[in-house]
Amino acid sequence: MSDLSRCSLNSATVKHASLTEAVEAAATAGLGAVGLWRHQVQEHGAGTARKIVEDAGLRVSSLCRGGFLTAATPEGVAEAVADNRRAIEEAAGVGTRELVFVVGGLPGSSPEQPPAPGTDRDVVAARQRVADRLADLAPIAAEHDVRIVLEALHPMFAADRAVLSTLGQALDLAAPFDARTVGVVVDTYHVWWDPDLQASIARAGREGRIAGYQICDWNLPFASLALNSRGHVGDGYIDFATITRWVAEAGYDGDVETEIFNEEIWAADPLETARTVGARYAEHVLPHL
Amino acid sequence: MSDLSRCSLNSATVKHASLTEAVEAAATAGLGAVGLWRHQVQEHGAGTARKIVEDAGLRVSSLCRGGFLTAATPEGVAEAVADNRRAIEEAAGVGTRELVFVVGGLPGSSPEQPPAPGTDRDVVAARQRVADRLADLAPIAAEHDVRIVLEALHPMFAADRAVLSTLGQALDLAAPFDARTVGVVVDTYHVWWDPDLQASIARAGREGRIAGYQICDWNLPFASLALNSRGHVGDGYIDFATITRWVAEAGYDGDVETEIFNEEIWAADPLETARTVGARYAEHVLPHL
Repeated sequence: MSDLSRCSLNSATVKHASLTEAVEAAATAGLGAVGLWRHQVQEHGAGTARKIVEDAGLRVSSLCRGGFLTAATPEGVAEAVADNRRAIEEAAGVGTRELVFVVGGLPGSSPEQPPAPGTDRDVVAARQRVADRLADLAPIAAEHDVRIVLEALHPMFAADRAVLSTLGQALDLAAPFDARTVGVVVDTYHVWWDPDLQASIARAGREGRIAGYQICDWNLPFASLALNSRGHVGDGYIDFATITRWVAEAGYDGDVETEIFNEEIWAADPLETARTVGARYAEHVLPHL
Repeated sequence: MSDLSRCSLNSATVKHASLTEAVEAAATAGLGAVGLWRHQVQEHGAGTARKIVEDAGLRVSSLCRGGFLTAATPEGVAEAVADNRRAIEEAAGVGTRELVFVVGGLPGSSPEQPPAPGTDRDVVAARQRVADRLADLAPIAAEHDVRIVLEALHPMFAADRAVLSTLGQALDLAAPFDARTVGVVVDTYHVWWDPDLQASIARAGREGRIAGYQICDWNLPFASLALNSRGHVGDGYIDFATITRWVAEAGYDGDVETEIFNEEIWAADPLETARTVGARYAEHVLPHL
């Protein structure tokens, strides 16, 4: 029997399961943790959500997600700060230090439609606003002993979801802040292609900023909604042995969270999915940790 | 009337037009050049293709495409070298120095299907083979006074089309070779998202390696085949003013080629497309050159 204690099921992988069902599936499959999303925590309240996880003998490996920091108007900025303050409180309440941030795309952008007239295409300025909002939020995170975990998203989402596209860029954004307060997550789906990946992971390790390791595979052909083209580890084109070794060599000893957006997997039985997550982790990742 | 002398129509933008029709459309729209693809040059023979272009008063801004250098077997390597030798001869024959290279993805990969059992996922080794093949091909290119123009493709194509994903990586690959023999193209669709883009364009200019500037827009939502999600300049999310200024400041004074893969645009009348290409160039690019 493989040791699945560091294997975590992100609840987005079993999107249609309730919090209780997701936790039960992870526990029954022998996993050690779950990654949660804010809507689930809000539905139950952080204290109750925490109890559901702990009563099953699991940990909360991370909370998804804060962020969306690129607003350019005073109202948008105030709203982003207020919402992320709530996210920080929820992370602390549900018992995890790791609050994953998706920083947001160009203001007014949409994955579903062309830019509206007058759309702001200045990605350089949008990135600067991300840096500015981190400066607003880091003290609040520190006060709650929560870490803002910057997630570089694949460059295919740079317009509509995250102007943060590489691990190196995430580390540059994190650099002004204490490593306990602002970290980064290595998500294989988003960063596997990066020619600087080995160097950036090593740098993240040296700087003490690796706050999470998320895994799922790069499937082809793309799904009709490209965001949902992710697959179980081993079904796609990513070299998990190599990337996992880099992460381990950088000193990471935390949870390894499987987060998959895929319509077919969402339609499957949550327990079956949790067992597959454990099996693929045991086969493709654990030997290299 | 705007000066369209540096505006080039890549023939892939009018995919269903013959070489003669594409050249006529570009000339009638007042453009200065066309970018060609090898199958067209092969169909007519390089000399005839060259004459068709020159008789219309146009230049050939580039030939697409050589490359596909990631094969790991001796047969695959020999085939890649032989085919690229022919591509180099075709470029010289059709009257352009600029031969665009798409370097290839993981061996055996496909945009249409999941990896076959035993697929080689080692992207680091595939990149090294690209470097090795460039060392084989650079002397052949130099002999024919042709430049190998490395094209970084968007990271969404890293598995199945090009393990070369950033302009910086292209410059690193080009570094061992004379700048007249190995250069790079800046293609807005592929590199617009890159946080290092400004620095990499400036470096490319300093190193004398900017061999082309290709433009088209980043459209959302994605087309059903993601490769074909490109749009006319101005229809998507790319900041052409800024990127064009960076390219101009880097000293580039060559042609600006519009290359769009888009089913709707392919279904349009080639002359209408060429006129739109000219108009969008005049509106969004020329003022910043």
